[in-house]
Amino acid sequence: MAVTPMRREDKTAPGSGLAARLAIRAGSHHGPTAGLAPGFVQGNLAILPQALAGDFLRFCQLNPKPCPVIGTSAPGDPRLPELGEDLDIRTDLSRYRVWKNGELVAEPEDVREFWRDDLVSFVIGCSFSFEEALTAEGIELRHMTRGCNVPMYRTSIATHEAGPFHGPMVVSMRPLTPRDAIRAVQITTRFPSVHGAPVHIGKPEMIGIADLSKPDYGDMVPVRDDELPVFWACGVTPQSVIATVKPEFCITHYPGSMLITDRKNTEFAIM
Amino acid sequence: MAVTPMRREDKTAPGSGLAARLAIRAGSHHGPTAGLAPGFVQGNLAILPQALAGDFLRFCQLNPKPCPVIGTSAPGDPRLPELGEDLDIRTDLSRYRVWKNGELVAEPEDVREFWRDDLVSFVIGCSFSFEEALTAEGIELRHMTRGCNVPMYRTSIATHEAGPFHGPMVVSMRPLTPRDAIRAVQITTRFPSVHGAPVHIGKPEMIGIADLSKPDYGDMVPVRDDELPVFWACGVTPQSVIATVKPEFCITHYPGSMLITDRKNTEFAIM
Repeated sequence: MAVTPMRREDKTAPGSGLAARLAIRAGSHHGPTAGLAPGFVQGNLAILPQALAGDFLRFCQLNPKPCPVIGTSAPGDPRLPELGEDLDIRTDLSRYRVWKNGELVAEPEDVREFWRDDLVSFVIGCSFSFEEALTAEGIELRHMTRGCNVPMYRTSIATHEAGPFHGPMVVSMRPLTPRDAIRAVQITTRFPSVHGAPVHIGKPEMIGIADLSKPDYGDMVPVRDDELPVFWACGVTPQSVIATVKPEFCITHYPGSMLITDRKNTEFAIM
Repeated sequence: MAVTPMRREDKTAPGSGLAARLAIRAGSHHGPTAGLAPGFVQGNLAILPQALAGDFLRFCQLNPKPCPVIGTSAPGDPRLPELGEDLDIRTDLSRYRVWKNGELVAEPEDVREFWRDDLVSFVIGCSFSFEEALTAEGIELRHMTRGCNVPMYRTSIATHEAGPFHGPMVVSMRPLTPRDAIRAVQITTRFPSVHGAPVHIGKPEMIGIADLSKPDYGDMVPVRDDELPVFWACGVTPQSVIATVKPEFCITHYPGSMLITDRKNTEFAIM
């Protein structure tokens, strides 16, 4: 995807992606990134040793709806210039999770001490991008109204495996009236690189979800009688899949502490 | 919409719109037009006195989803050159209905004897165009599989009134799996001038349909447990609305005997 050049002064303006990253890097912002730098793309992070990176990239390419890769680094290189000129993946997230052999070993605000020369970073698109487009059209998103996390579920939809990576697709759910559900299909179809159109509407049992009130991740939100549950492929899928592989080493973002980029959500709309 | 010029030899080729019209005009084809001239746009017909034509056109423009006008004639002129060079609206449908003060007075194969100098023809898009695009993608349409008419229902969705024209929207229903329903929203969104995206999915009671097994027009088709009923605005709406106005004179197509044009369905796709 072409990157629209941006002047340096726009990039550091208050509310920009870079301004948010600099605040995080300086330690002046802690905690979740929802609502920071409105309009700028936020992404899920997975950092893996080079030995696993090829298979993981192939896994993502085979499963573009749950795992839309929006940036990758060279081995050992903490920069991702396509996502932000001054980006340092070791310092620019507000919190990380560090895993060894599938065990959580640390939740630091900086991963410079864990850095290795063979680490490859993967940034994966996140539903924040399409949620902005939905709310801009006046569509209510229940988890936002309630100030909680979107409910997420492991499904019976299998991903396509690649090397050691395999497992079920995780989906997020938003209750919408039928009219809003149709509009939401149209709007999110415009964002194929951030999960795109829903993968399911209306019949959770068909995708292996027995009880909507018991999400596997995030928080429960009620579905009204005049609403349909609408399901999108979720960027938690790659983390869920990595967890089953138990790689000898891996770093992910702390839930809710996403990477904020210099890319605009609107750049990701294909029309 | 731009009309792609077509060579005369293409137009009269077997299977073309013009070839079908000439066969109908010559009396060598009778009955329904479904399946004739594949790929060519078919339309609903309403012919009204000029005194009502302004209000009716305004009604259609206010209600583009059920009443997408794809062609109109000058008063008294039986030609519609934007839909077909040699088109004569008085002879080129296989059967008509002639109405006086809301009463059906004739069902002729030719309306030359009823023609008046003040008659204005309206050709309104028809779901045949988007159904072709759906079946081309492998989506099963139940009424086609069963060889019957699509079920249609009067709804509680009001149209926007114009002069004497007002009344409920009529919708057609196609049962689809959730996956096909999402794909069908995407595909039919590409065809805004032939009803476009669905108006409702999944909860018929929300649009005033008490019993799916009792359509107001067409035939009942079963909805399986793994399917959602998907509803599109229907070109029967203008006929239903005209019937309530009981104009002193009016001509419509006989159900299933559509006007076949020289336009291609693919021309109507906006992307």
